[in-house]
Amino acid sequence: MITSLITGGAGFIGSHVAKHCMDMGHKVVVLDDLSGGFEDHIPEGAIFEKGSVADAALVQQLFSKYQFTYVYHLAAYAAEGLSHFIRNFNYTNNLIGSVNLINESVKHKIKCFVFTSSIAVYGKGQLPMTEEMTPIPEDPYGVSKYAVELDLKAAHEMFGLNYVVFRPHNVYGENQNIGDKYRNVIGIFMNQIMQGKQLTIFGDGTQTRAFSYIDDVAIPIAKCVDVEASYNETFNIGADKPYTVNELAEVVCAEFGVTPNINYLSARNEVLHAYSSHAKAHKVFGAGLNLSLKDGIAKMASWARRVGARQSQEFGNIEITEKLPDGWQVITK
Amino acid sequence: MITSLITGGAGFIGSHVAKHCMDMGHKVVVLDDLSGGFEDHIPEGAIFEKGSVADAALVQQLFSKYQFTYVYHLAAYAAEGLSHFIRNFNYTNNLIGSVNLINESVKHKIKCFVFTSSIAVYGKGQLPMTEEMTPIPEDPYGVSKYAVELDLKAAHEMFGLNYVVFRPHNVYGENQNIGDKYRNVIGIFMNQIMQGKQLTIFGDGTQTRAFSYIDDVAIPIAKCVDVEASYNETFNIGADKPYTVNELAEVVCAEFGVTPNINYLSARNEVLHAYSSHAKAHKVFGAGLNLSLKDGIAKMASWARRVGARQSQEFGNIEITEKLPDGWQVITK
Repeated sequence: MITSLITGGAGFIGSHVAKHCMDMGHKVVVLDDLSGGFEDHIPEGAIFEKGSVADAALVQQLFSKYQFTYVYHLAAYAAEGLSHFIRNFNYTNNLIGSVNLINESVKHKIKCFVFTSSIAVYGKGQLPMTEEMTPIPEDPYGVSKYAVELDLKAAHEMFGLNYVVFRPHNVYGENQNIGDKYRNVIGIFMNQIMQGKQLTIFGDGTQTRAFSYIDDVAIPIAKCVDVEASYNETFNIGADKPYTVNELAEVVCAEFGVTPNINYLSARNEVLHAYSSHAKAHKVFGAGLNLSLKDGIAKMASWARRVGARQSQEFGNIEITEKLPDGWQVITK
Repeated sequence: MITSLITGGAGFIGSHVAKHCMDMGHKVVVLDDLSGGFEDHIPEGAIFEKGSVADAALVQQLFSKYQFTYVYHLAAYAAEGLSHFIRNFNYTNNLIGSVNLINESVKHKIKCFVFTSSIAVYGKGQLPMTEEMTPIPEDPYGVSKYAVELDLKAAHEMFGLNYVVFRPHNVYGENQNIGDKYRNVIGIFMNQIMQGKQLTIFGDGTQTRAFSYIDDVAIPIAKCVDVEASYNETFNIGADKPYTVNELAEVVCAEFGVTPNINYLSARNEVLHAYSSHAKAHKVFGAGLNLSLKDGIAKMASWARRVGARQSQEFGNIEITEKLPDGWQVITK
């Protein structure tokens, strides 16, 4: 019996990975603190353990209790732009949480540790980003993800722990937390449209991103444990074609049958253009679906209309309020 | 009045930096949890606050209380080889502790944040290591130091926080914790000689390091705040000339008038040769003393004979015991 731990399995990408692992016949244990996920996203038949990866004692207990074969680590607080303002929270959740899992994975000799990193590790690099480049992350979120990548490599060298690192980017689809106003522009747009609000864009909307439909990301993540050529390798995954945020707004508005009505806010300190090569992933995992943006948006919109608009959640532990972008409400510690 | 916070100011390099800051007329506040330092190393006239940089609430209080002009951040658990076995502890002390200080430094708009990183960030790179290289650290200690460097750069870009990063290496001298058996080969040798024990060397002793006398490191660290050309720059500092660990053993034994009697243990997973260029530091700070190894060892030995041998302290929180090197006693959590 293969037993897999999916951290963040109530979250967006994690819930999809959990479902694919169930389909692959794994016994699935989801660890999630529900800070960004929802219990009803956890696939039926999975075991749910509520708690945080940052809780070292809990992580130890779970490894002893379930004797995992594989660890899929997707739990993270992934608001890249907000990470400047929540450094302690960012590193505690994204790095300390990860090393708690790495420690136990070494001790229990699990077969493979699958880690979802991020395109954020690259920083403002040469385009397209390829896995051969040495990352130089430029914000605390990217730093925390890159630190985990390096730590995994050290654990592999020292203890023989196998890992697969994925660097997805701009993922969208069903189960996304569209109530999170700090991240995921597609979810934000849909939520704004369904609430009859203006769309908000930081800067002039000419920044480009290659928006990736969830299946193109979650399927290779779930399946990599059976693909030996992927072990101890790092992969960019996601869609190839970049769109401007303005183009995205048009596609989303067309899907909902509304005329774009956009409130352009001050630009954030973010990378203007970001797209990566997926040649390596295609070679190892096959080409994927590569759904068009229009079709992917249609699938997500159909789900979003069904679940309805959600009230935005405020992040309660902002550590630095200076230079916090417009519209990100200030709740200080 | 210039007020400086020296974290780790009861420790080895920190106590020297504290002394030089006092000489420069600063009001000095030392924050140290005495895990590796000693209260009697804190220079007279400095204010001592006992506690850890990992305690965010304490760090907040101190910044409000003293309104620091400069922060010299030297507190760290710097046992590079042990860091594989204490991941959580390593990142909590070395990274979370640092971002607590960075957060408050941004909020209180301090003038400069001086950070002692390490040559460990480079990994097994090209030699000599120069500041132009992109680091790729290979152990949790190096990863934590590099993450802080990147985070400081992000804080500078976003909030205008000035920083100076130093990457010292293999520093030795008075006030070193010669009772720490996990690090600092010179202190370990002196302690072993004074206790009439065999010297222990990991591997065959042909690994080389450029051992750096404390003044060549602590003086530029203290003075950099007055050197504007150093702001927002990174510097290798320390001695230029590499010696093998076997040559070092000979110099130390000669100083103590004993014949080398060496117990060669299994090699650790460590960099074989490590030396760095100091051209950039010499250009900005001047050439330094560059004391010969023999003269530096004589100065340190004279101090070590005065304070006497110390009982080695065991580290009480080993997280992974697998592959722990010979002689590193196992005390599990």
